[in-house]
Order: sequence, then C-alpha cells, then structure tokens
Amino acid sequence: MADDLREMALEMFSPLPSTTPAVNDNLITPAKIDLGKALFFDPRMSASGVFSCNSCHNLATGGDDNMPTSIGHGWQKGPRNSPTVLNAVFNEAQFWDGRAPDLAAQAKGPVQAGVEMANTPDNVVATLNSMPQYQDWFKASFPDEADPVTFDNFAKAIEAYEATLLTPSPFDAYLNGDENALTDDEKAGLALFMDAGCASCHNGINLGGNGYYPFGLIEKPGADILPEGDRGRFAVTDTADDEYVFRAAPLRNIAVTAPYFHSGKVWDLETAVAIMATSQLGADLNDQEIGQITAFLGSLTGTVPVVEYPVLPAETATTPRPTGEVK
Amino acid sequence: MADDLREMALEMFSPLPSTTPAVNDNLITPAKIDLGKALFFDPRMSASGVFSCNSCHNLATGGDDNMPTSIGHGWQKGPRNSPTVLNAVFNEAQFWDGRAPDLAAQAKGPVQAGVEMANTPDNVVATLNSMPQYQDWFKASFPDEADPVTFDNFAKAIEAYEATLLTPSPFDAYLNGDENALTDDEKAGLALFMDAGCASCHNGINLGGNGYYPFGLIEKPGADILPEGDRGRFAVTDTADDEYVFRAAPLRNIAVTAPYFHSGKVWDLETAVAIMATSQLGADLNDQEIGQITAFLGSLTGTVPVVEYPVLPAETATTPRPTGEVK
Repeated sequence: MADDLREMALEMFSPLPSTTPAVNDNLITPAKIDLGKALFFDPRMSASGVFSCNSCHNLATGGDDNMPTSIGHGWQKGPRNSPTVLNAVFNEAQFWDGRAPDLAAQAKGPVQAGVEMANTPDNVVATLNSMPQYQDWFKASFPDEADPVTFDNFAKAIEAYEATLLTPSPFDAYLNGDENALTDDEKAGLALFMDAGCASCHNGINLGGNGYYPFGLIEKPGADILPEGDRGRFAVTDTADDEYVFRAAPLRNIAVTAPYFHSGKVWDLETAVAIMATSQLGADLNDQEIGQITAFLGSLTGTVPVVEYPVLPAETATTPRPTGEVK
Repeated sequence: MADDLREMALEMFSPLPSTTPAVNDNLITPAKIDLGKALFFDPRMSASGVFSCNSCHNLATGGDDNMPTSIGHGWQKGPRNSPTVLNAVFNEAQFWDGRAPDLAAQAKGPVQAGVEMANTPDNVVATLNSMPQYQDWFKASFPDEADPVTFDNFAKAIEAYEATLLTPSPFDAYLNGDENALTDDEKAGLALFMDAGCASCHNGINLGGNGYYPFGLIEKPGADILPEGDRGRFAVTDTADDEYVFRAAPLRNIAVTAPYFHSGKVWDLETAVAIMATSQLGADLNDQEIGQITAFLGSLTGTVPVVEYPVLPAETATTPRPTGEVK
C-alpha cells in the first residue's frame, strides 16, 4: 500500500535533481553563477536604484514578495502576483501567461517594465560598463566574446544563477524512497491530490508550471479572484480559447508564498485549495480533505540554498545616476 | 619618518577592534545577532512590505543606498542622505544631526517615519507575534523576559546585529603596524589629512561621527549643497549656535558610499574633499593634494563581513497585511 502510493506518485511527479540542471544555449559556470547572483541582488539594475530582482523575488521569503501584486517604480502596482523564483528553472515557460520561454527571456521583462524597474537595456549596459569589476566578471563569464557586457548576457547570467535555486523538500525525500519523510496526513493529502484530479494540471517536477488551463474550467470564480480585465494567455496568443487561461501554478513552496492566484487575492492556502476544487474540478471536498491536501502542499516547502549576500562593485563617475522620475 | 607618521596617526585615530564591541545596556549574544539580522533584512517591518533596513543601508553597496536621498513609502523622498550602517556602532550618536544616542534608538526612527517605512510599533509587534519562529527567536534572545516581543527589543536586536558590521581596511592594517598596507600616495594623503586640519573633526575610530560642526565654518557652500531648509542640529537643540550644524561624517568606506553630504548632492569624492577644504578649513588645496587625500580616503574602504542571507519566517493567518496606502 505504502509502495503503491509512491509508485503512483512517481508516475505523476519527479523529485528535484541534486545538481544544477543544464539550460538551453547557456553554459552554466561558477563565474556566471556568481555574476548572476550579483546582478540578481543589484538595485542599480532599476532606473530608481530601489528595486533589484530580489525585491519581488526575495530569497528570504520563499522567492517572492508577500503582496497581492508588487509595488514598483513610482509606487505603481504590477498587474499580477509575483511568482517564486525558486525552482523556476523547471517551469516549461515563465510568467503567469507563459509569455517567456525561459528564465533568460523572463529576466529581461521586469527590468524594462514601466511599473517595475523602469529601466532600458542601454542604461543597464551603461551602468554595468561603468564599473570595471562588472566588466571583469562578464569577461570571466563569457570568455569567448569580444564584447561580453550585453543585455542578453545580463539575462543569461541571471538565468544561470536562478538555475541554482533549488529547494529539496520532504516530498522529494519521500519520492526518493524515505517512507517517513511524509506524515500520514500528508500522505493522505497526496493520495487525494492525485485522486481528486489536482495532479492532472499540477504534475511534473514543479507540480505545475508546465501546462495552460482556463481558470474556472468548471465554475468561474468571482471577479474579486478572477478580475475581468486580465484575460491571461489571450494576450499572448490572441486566441479565443485562451481567454482566462493561465499556466498552472507550480506548487513547490506554496505554503510560504501567499497570497495566491495571479490576482494575489487569497491569503489562506486552505481557501485557495477549496477554490481550486470548485472552479477546476467541480469537486466538493470536505474540511478534512482540504486540510489533508493542504498538509501535503506543506511538504513541498524546501530548503533554500545558502546564499552569501554579495558585495557589489562601487559606482564610478560614469555610472548613470538613479532617477525616481515616472515617465 | 615612517614611524613618525604612524605615531602621529595613532594619536588621532584608532584601528577597528577585531571583535564585536560591547554596547550599553544590550548584551550581545549569537541568538540576538541572528534575530537582528533577520529583522534587518525583513521587508515586512515596513507598512508596505517593500522596505527593510537593508533597503537604504544595503550591505551589498557600502551599507547605504546610492541616492541623494532615499525613496520610501509612497515614493516619497527622505530629507537627508542615508548614512552607512557599517561601523556605525562607533559613532558617538546616530543620524546626521545626532538625534539618536545609539543604534537601538536609531533603529526605531525609519520604521516609523512616514516617508520611510511608515509603520507603527504596534504593527511591528503584531507582525512579529504572528510568526511563531519570531516568537522563539525573541525568547532565545531575551531569555529573562516574560514578554520578549517588544518594539524596544526589536531595536536592541537590530543594534546587536549592526554592532557586528565592522569593515577592517588597509588603514587599520597600517595603524596596526603594517607599513606596506598604504601606498606612498595614501601616506602622503594621510599626512595632509592631519596637517591641513581635516582630522580636527574627522578623527577617532570612524574618522568622524563623534562631534558636531557647522557646515560652512569658514565659507558657506551654495544652497545646492547646503539647502537652507535643513538647519541640521538646530532642530534637535533649538539653539541658535546649532544652525547648520551636523555631525562630522564618519569616513570609513567613504569611497564606496557616494553621493556625499547630508544633501547627497555631490557624487565625486575629490569634489567633496575640495568643498570641505574650502568651507571648513579655508584651505586652498591643489589638485595633487586633493588627489592624495582622496587616495588616503580610499584606504578606509574595508572588507564587509560575510553575510549569509537569512531565510525569514513565513506569514500566518494573523500577520497584518501589507499596505502601500499613503496616509
């Protein structure tokens, strides 16, 4: 029976690997990881000097922020909840609507978004080129390139760093054969998660992040949770079938990354599970079942890698000055 | 001659100690340091969830931000340049006008300032109490107290952490007897720094931070650098003699903490040195002399301690929600 549950689970899910995965067209080296970490934590990558990648994808708080939607340049609010960067390398595509094929493409988005970091590729490159240490780090990270300080390489270095942000969890230990890694409640939740149909969308290594589904497949939630103005993947594909379609949220570390959904309107994980059951499965789960599924989701909270906070290069006379001006 | 210079220097300055200093009325323990680090990096200490202590006193960039004045809650600008937290434990008092006697008193300021973190002591305590792990950490840090989660203890823990942020520099190695720790230019700059009179105000362990002086003692700089609306320590003492009086800036890590002065209006260190010479000393230094003093100031850039980025407790159902609302 115990073995049966794990065997079923192994058909739907995969444990995290124990090493950094390879990514397409981007050789991961220690030098590139270190550069990417510096860039990830550097607030001077934003026009104002206030925001770094880590501001909204904070490694101290589950790899996201703790807000419905992020606050960015000029105190503007972003349109959707900030997803966690942890294990994001295993998502099939990035953003809630999957509009970026990989983390390098994703990294170029927020830095240019007017409501987020409000910067330009030219200004990022000028900022990096103004600091000799960054020039050296780019040379070491892209040794075959004559002119390595580019916006593309900025994004690739961030992707390389983010690929290291894996958080092995009790669920991984369980999948790897440790029967005692999950409690009985968590195992009951796992069984329910598969039986009730949650795993039809939330499967694979990240229990989600690898497919697109309408939010409200069976019953559309209210506009407080599914705001009408945000039609999801429709904006990417311009296809009627993609109205209110979103990438299934990856569920690793979900217990520590409230609030939930692309709208960030639900703070309580049990409530989120209940909404999913109704809207996506038409299932009427009782409180005990919801509690067990939530307990199982808690077993997806993993150990964040040790991060040595970087010491960044100092500005020079040619570093573009920060500006909080809203254009 | 070489020994003479060091002997003279040792009469004016002191090297950093090699261990964390004791602070008044606040026993520093490993548990308290760890708690203080978590609090220092926790953006949920601000009303919006955007700003932590580290936002404006960023350990990655010299212990300050890189702006004339910080951007805070509601995208408001603070009134004065953010000073570095590095080695700040050795300042006689905190803030540009010395209005906080120590780091614990200082820590209570920005968290409540409407233009900075815009929080309240009650909301900070409610936030901390909502997370069991924070409760445990406060108990471990203040083991003799029945009710350890208080705003006072919040500030004391931050003070304990900040007391560990010491950055030994080549100048310390020189003071400790390593003749080769400074270049000839840096030594010439050190001699000038003492001869010209800079060290009259910028002395002691932090080369400043321990006395109050009018900005514009000899010649008042223009309103672009010394804005008329900010009368400095006058706001603290209400004494005419304290008009435009500020605490002498501590100069450790000055080369990596541009822009300069309480107004943050000067980005170039040589320019700042020239302004100081004119306004405070009435000295007419030539370019070589300014270059040598600037070289000496560069020898005050120290090694930042290794900081393991914290993993913070997750919010619970009772955690007060972040709000970006500007009251």
